[in-house]
Amino acid sequence: MPATRHLPPPSATERTRHRRLREQGGTDRAEFDAILAAGFVCHMGVVVDGSVLVVPTVYGADERTLYLHGSVASRSLVAAPGTEVCVTVTHVDGLVLARSVFEHGVNYRSAMVFGVPRVVEDPDEKLTGLRLLTEQAAPGQWGYARLPNRRELAATALLALPLDEVSVKTSSGPPEDGDGPDAALDVWAGELLLRTVWGEPVADPALSPGTGVPRHIAARQGTALG
Amino acid sequence: MPATRHLPPPSATERTRHRRLREQGGTDRAEFDAILAAGFVCHMGVVVDGSVLVVPTVYGADERTLYLHGSVASRSLVAAPGTEVCVTVTHVDGLVLARSVFEHGVNYRSAMVFGVPRVVEDPDEKLTGLRLLTEQAAPGQWGYARLPNRRELAATALLALPLDEVSVKTSSGPPEDGDGPDAALDVWAGELLLRTVWGEPVADPALSPGTGVPRHIAARQGTALG
Repeated sequence: MPATRHLPPPSATERTRHRRLREQGGTDRAEFDAILAAGFVCHMGVVVDGSVLVVPTVYGADERTLYLHGSVASRSLVAAPGTEVCVTVTHVDGLVLARSVFEHGVNYRSAMVFGVPRVVEDPDEKLTGLRLLTEQAAPGQWGYARLPNRRELAATALLALPLDEVSVKTSSGPPEDGDGPDAALDVWAGELLLRTVWGEPVADPALSPGTGVPRHIAARQGTALG
Repeated sequence: MPATRHLPPPSATERTRHRRLREQGGTDRAEFDAILAAGFVCHMGVVVDGSVLVVPTVYGADERTLYLHGSVASRSLVAAPGTEVCVTVTHVDGLVLARSVFEHGVNYRSAMVFGVPRVVEDPDEKLTGLRLLTEQAAPGQWGYARLPNRRELAATALLALPLDEVSVKTSSGPPEDGDGPDAALDVWAGELLLRTVWGEPVADPALSPGTGVPRHIAARQGTALG
C-alpha cells in the first residue's frame, strides 16, 4: 500500500484516529467490519474516461469480499478492466459543537476499501453476492421475497472487491477546547447526536388487501441504523 | 459536459429519474439546491497519485459555489492544480421492498457536482466559506461561538468548487412489480422509511456548570435531517 493512499494525519479540528489495517488486523479489522455491518449504502469512486465519478450504491460483504451493485460502474470496469476504485462507508454520529468555530467538527465512523473490482460472472457467486447485499439492507428478505430467476440474475450487474486494502477513520467524543482559554467563554459546548432510524413500513398501494407486514420488516421500526 | 460523465439510464431495479442540469436549470436546479440544503456531509472523490480517494467532508454553499473543508484533498490539489473532483451528497429515504428480490431497491436523493476546485486563499472569502459550512451543519453557531482568528483562518484548508456542472439522481415511490405476475404472490411489498434525526445535546464534561444549551441547538432535537 503506497503511503500516498494513506489519509493525512488528523487536523486540529478533526481529532481523528486513523489506522491502516494490516492484513492480520485484529481490533482494527473488527472495527472495519462493524462499520460495514452498520450500513448498507456506500459511495464508490471510479475514474470513467478520465473523470472521477462518486456514486452511491448498495453493498454486502463476507469476510473476504465486498459485493457492490454495479449498474453504474460495471460498464466502465468492463470496458477498462484493472480500474481501481475506492469504496467508502460513512456513519455520521453527531456534531461537535465547540467554544470556537475552529474546533467544531463531526463525529463519524468511516471505512474505506481500495482495490480493483471484478465483474461477477459465475451464477453461483452472483447469487451469493446478491444474497449478501439483500440481507445487508433488509435482513430476512432473501428467505421471504421471490428469488432471482436466470434471466434476472443475468440482468444484474454485480462487482466483487477484495477486502485486502482497507482503512478506518473515526472521530468521537467532546470538543477539545475545554482545557484552553476558550473554556472561560460563556458558550455551551458538547455533541449534538444524530441518529438514523427505521420508520414505518408504507404498503404499496397495489398490495392485495390482507397481506400483512412480516415480522422481520415490522420489527425494524424505531431501531437505529449505524 | 461530455456524455461520458452522464450517469447511465436507470436500471430496471432502480426506477431512477436522472437529469443533467443546464446552466439555466429551473425546477431541476431547485431540486439540486434542496438536496444540498438538506445535508451537511458529502463524499468527495479525487485522484491522488493515480488512485481514487473518496473522503467524507463537510460543505456549505451559496448560489454559485460549493465550499468544502479540504484538509484531505487540498494537499493533492495544491500539488496538482487543475485536478477534477466529483462531490456527491446522498440522502437515503427508505428501502423499496418488492415481491421479488430483483425489484428491490433504495429510495434516495443524490446530488453531484463535477469540477476543478480551487484552494481558497483570500481571507474574506475563507471567512465567508467557513460561515456557510458552519451554518450548513449548525445553524446559529456562527453568531454564537467564537469566530476564527487570523491564525486559525490561516490553518484552515478550504476548497471552492463552482456549481456549474451538477446533476441530480433520485428514486422514490413503491416497488414496480405490483402490476405483474408477482402481484399474485402472498408477499408484502412497500417502502420501509429511513429517517435521520437530531438527538439530544450531550454537554462536554469540561463545560462550566450552569452553561445552558442555547435555543438554536436545543430546538433541533427530534427534527429530521434530509
